[in-house]
Amino acid sequence: MKHWTDIKLPIPNWINTWTTGIQETFPEVEQRMALTIDLARINLKYGGGPFGAAVFNKRTGELIAPGVNWVIPGKSSLLHAEVMALALAEQTLGSYELASHGSFELVTSVEPCCQCLGVLVWTGVASVVCGACSEDAEAIGFNEGPRPLDWEQELVRRGISVTREVMRPQAVEVLQSYIGEIYNVNPKNLS
Amino acid sequence: MKHWTDIKLPIPNWINTWTTGIQETFPEVEQRMALTIDLARINLKYGGGPFGAAVFNKRTGELIAPGVNWVIPGKSSLLHAEVMALALAEQTLGSYELASHGSFELVTSVEPCCQCLGVLVWTGVASVVCGACSEDAEAIGFNEGPRPLDWEQELVRRGISVTREVMRPQAVEVLQSYIGEIYNVNPKNLS
Repeated sequence: MKHWTDIKLPIPNWINTWTTGIQETFPEVEQRMALTIDLARINLKYGGGPFGAAVFNKRTGELIAPGVNWVIPGKSSLLHAEVMALALAEQTLGSYELASHGSFELVTSVEPCCQCLGVLVWTGVASVVCGACSEDAEAIGFNEGPRPLDWEQELVRRGISVTREVMRPQAVEVLQSYIGEIYNVNPKNLS
Repeated sequence: MKHWTDIKLPIPNWINTWTTGIQETFPEVEQRMALTIDLARINLKYGGGPFGAAVFNKRTGELIAPGVNWVIPGKSSLLHAEVMALALAEQTLGSYELASHGSFELVTSVEPCCQCLGVLVWTGVASVVCGACSEDAEAIGFNEGPRPLDWEQELVRRGISVTREVMRPQAVEVLQSYIGEIYNVNPKNLS
């Protein structure tokens, strides 16, 4: 007899230890991006992918939820950095729609792939801030999957603002330091 | 002090009760689609959305994992039917890549929105079978979000086969019986 249990997506243990040492608010966008790049960099040491993200309250700069790429250790293809941060933010607020609780910003060390783009649209975030560009991720072998070519404009016309290339060089540096597995990629799966 | 816990995405209690009464394998595609339409129909009685999905082993027709739209009861915008079925399938197999465990098919009562499209690409499913079309969901007020116009071809060129309009009238009937909330939609968010 089949029996299914609730879906559990693990987050790394180190995240809660590490965040005890950081400030509570991040008023400047460079501070918010620096946090996500730090998340990506530290994540590499623990066997995760070179991607970090976080959700912030736009008004106060408060960190609502962090995220890292935990696909391989967490055994779930859902566990991209943006998805972890957004799902943790919804869990923290107890809501399927962030917009009903204020104005929230998703900051991500690399532009969102097809999965993260699709997920963020329905969370109700007000804005997205990106560090490295898609071509930077593709340069080390990852690919972004089937997104609309004008994904930025698709978000903007839904009322979600987009800012790109914030601290891009620092975000690229973390990408280029990754020497782990490029997963879910085969000749057929490449862009 | 902030503290985050693992992400928990609940599945409806009724699913395990209900699946005790069904067969174990579904060799014909119409049987697989009928199951997902049943999931969608029953889900409405429990306060979920009019969408059902399931992952099957392509070789044996075995049901690996069911899914329904549980966004509002489960308080997570991730809980679309396809995402639930795919995440449960990965959890059942203990893997972030279904393709390394065999050949799996995602059957969905309605064509995937941007989120479900993005999620399915990275799961490693071999094929997708759809019932109702995107315009059927849009006709009752849902929208599919920013997808590539040629999303079917985008999947095919990644080695994922797509079959559309299997038992479309029956799937549409469930959509049209929905009288609940159309969430995460405002004028800016409409296609």
